[in-house]
Amino acid sequence: MREFQLLSHLAALAKADPQPAWLRVPPGDDMALVDVPGGRLLVAVDQVVEGRHFVLGTPLEAVGRKAVLRNVSDVAAMASVPLACLASVALPASMDEQGALALLAGVRSAAAAWQCPLIGGDTSVHAQPGSPLVLSVTILAVPGPSGRVVTRQGTRAGDAVCVTGALGGSLQPDGSGRHLDFTPRVAAALELVSVLGDRLHAMLDISDGLGRDAAHLARNAAPSALDLELRAAAIPCTAGCTWQHALRDGEDHELLFTCAGTPPSQVAGVPVTVIGAAVPPANAGRSTVWLLDGTQRMDATALGWEHASPPGSGHAREGGSGRGAAR
Amino acid sequence: MREFQLLSHLAALAKADPQPAWLRVPPGDDMALVDVPGGRLLVAVDQVVEGRHFVLGTPLEAVGRKAVLRNVSDVAAMASVPLACLASVALPASMDEQGALALLAGVRSAAAAWQCPLIGGDTSVHAQPGSPLVLSVTILAVPGPSGRVVTRQGTRAGDAVCVTGALGGSLQPDGSGRHLDFTPRVAAALELVSVLGDRLHAMLDISDGLGRDAAHLARNAAPSALDLELRAAAIPCTAGCTWQHALRDGEDHELLFTCAGTPPSQVAGVPVTVIGAAVPPANAGRSTVWLLDGTQRMDATALGWEHASPPGSGHAREGGSGRGAAR
Repeated sequence: MREFQLLSHLAALAKADPQPAWLRVPPGDDMALVDVPGGRLLVAVDQVVEGRHFVLGTPLEAVGRKAVLRNVSDVAAMASVPLACLASVALPASMDEQGALALLAGVRSAAAAWQCPLIGGDTSVHAQPGSPLVLSVTILAVPGPSGRVVTRQGTRAGDAVCVTGALGGSLQPDGSGRHLDFTPRVAAALELVSVLGDRLHAMLDISDGLGRDAAHLARNAAPSALDLELRAAAIPCTAGCTWQHALRDGEDHELLFTCAGTPPSQVAGVPVTVIGAAVPPANAGRSTVWLLDGTQRMDATALGWEHASPPGSGHAREGGSGRGAAR
Repeated sequence: MREFQLLSHLAALAKADPQPAWLRVPPGDDMALVDVPGGRLLVAVDQVVEGRHFVLGTPLEAVGRKAVLRNVSDVAAMASVPLACLASVALPASMDEQGALALLAGVRSAAAAWQCPLIGGDTSVHAQPGSPLVLSVTILAVPGPSGRVVTRQGTRAGDAVCVTGALGGSLQPDGSGRHLDFTPRVAAALELVSVLGDRLHAMLDISDGLGRDAAHLARNAAPSALDLELRAAAIPCTAGCTWQHALRDGEDHELLFTCAGTPPSQVAGVPVTVIGAAVPPANAGRSTVWLLDGTQRMDATALGWEHASPPGSGHAREGGSGRGAAR
């Protein structure tokens, strides 16, 4: 396609939209200028890459939406509130203006739905035909009403390990599925902070699979690494899925957290399930995620984390190791 | 290559580095948390795409550096001060770990040099062999000591149109050149604010070529669009370049600004040249950049902006229309 001024289009749209009072310099300048309530800001970036996070043929509006939702889920993981987002995109040379507009519409509608308007970006068109779409979204957020930001650090021995919602099966064989459209747990996370207070110790969102993501909490326990023991029978699975899917599939974008005592049975209308406990490490200086299934105990630390799988499958789930590898 | 934990590597590096006091949650969590001095933050994103912004074979450290410098130049354009940056990267499947580390080293060293440490990111590996490297950098910045942020808006009739440094020839035929390594004009911009005060009306950095970038200032003049008249003979050109190069080449990353009265002859050791003036529009309701060459007057509004050129040349300069199309 010819060079398409996606973000100039955005600037024009932004001028027509009502602008938030905190946006002092809107899209169209070299940078956006924002007022940050309280002077504390959270920031992250996360991308969706064709062949990795979605298959060719996925509706472009869904691709744009997913890129925003992934980031909003990171905001939920910190128990924070979305403020604004920016997008940079490398478009396939073959994409027409309609496609680019659909992508932008997906980004904008998800951003509006989660109250983090798109305030800037950058567009390029690939030089080589056949090059894949890469859409990177940066999200800005601010702490919630309590001022508390919850990190991956701070799990203690004896903590309950808990999860919101149900896990597994986010990706259908045809590339569709929940990984393209889910509800980031922003409201649930804020309610957890409100209800649990200091009993809420650590949290993240499940993007790479329960096994691997639980390992992040185990490794960052306080004062030193712990093991997590997860009970297979306790893991809430989506219809048609087993605990194996829950451990491995990833892109659930549910909250995984640790707390002292008992959590509420639901937050913001989302069920909460205790799936295990944090325990002293079986091997000193190492953290392990154990999966207890009847009398069996298996090491699930690396599940969901296909480190040795070569890229090139072109299938989003098989590329799990490429997803969010570094958030 | 196998999945490479570029940003996990970054998190490990960040733990070893001394951490700035304002970085409350460092890399390795779902988001970074920063204190924002004064509660005002600037943010932008800009990417470098293989075949568009650099040719295959460019040293990867230079690619990483360029991605940061482009963004720091946007900070200079707002007369602001870099705070931190984030990077998301889609790596070619064929890239080895050494290549990924060189890219990261380029990002980190440029970020350190410009005092905007890398505080987060995301890494993916392309599924399809042959897919190009895409590196997107988000930059955070804060207003300078005066608190003044200079935008593209506010040029007035009678203003001098001025430029720092010399223009043209940023790209050598072999793909090397100044576009890969330049000095963003942060210090010069801060000094302009300090010296000119309210006489400094509008500013940007020249990334797409003098013609097109001047058009941004003309269009955003106050109270309504103006024309800019540029004198060909006055345009400072780099050795071996003509005003045609200056208008068209782009990626100079010099400051283009408008001011009342006379600017200083240099700022922060960089020469300042008056190259024209803002005048009432020749056609009501339209803004035009005129290039005056002897008795000739040509419309240069679209120069540097190859809107109709198809992508696919694989040559960075010819892809000028793809560069910064939407900042």
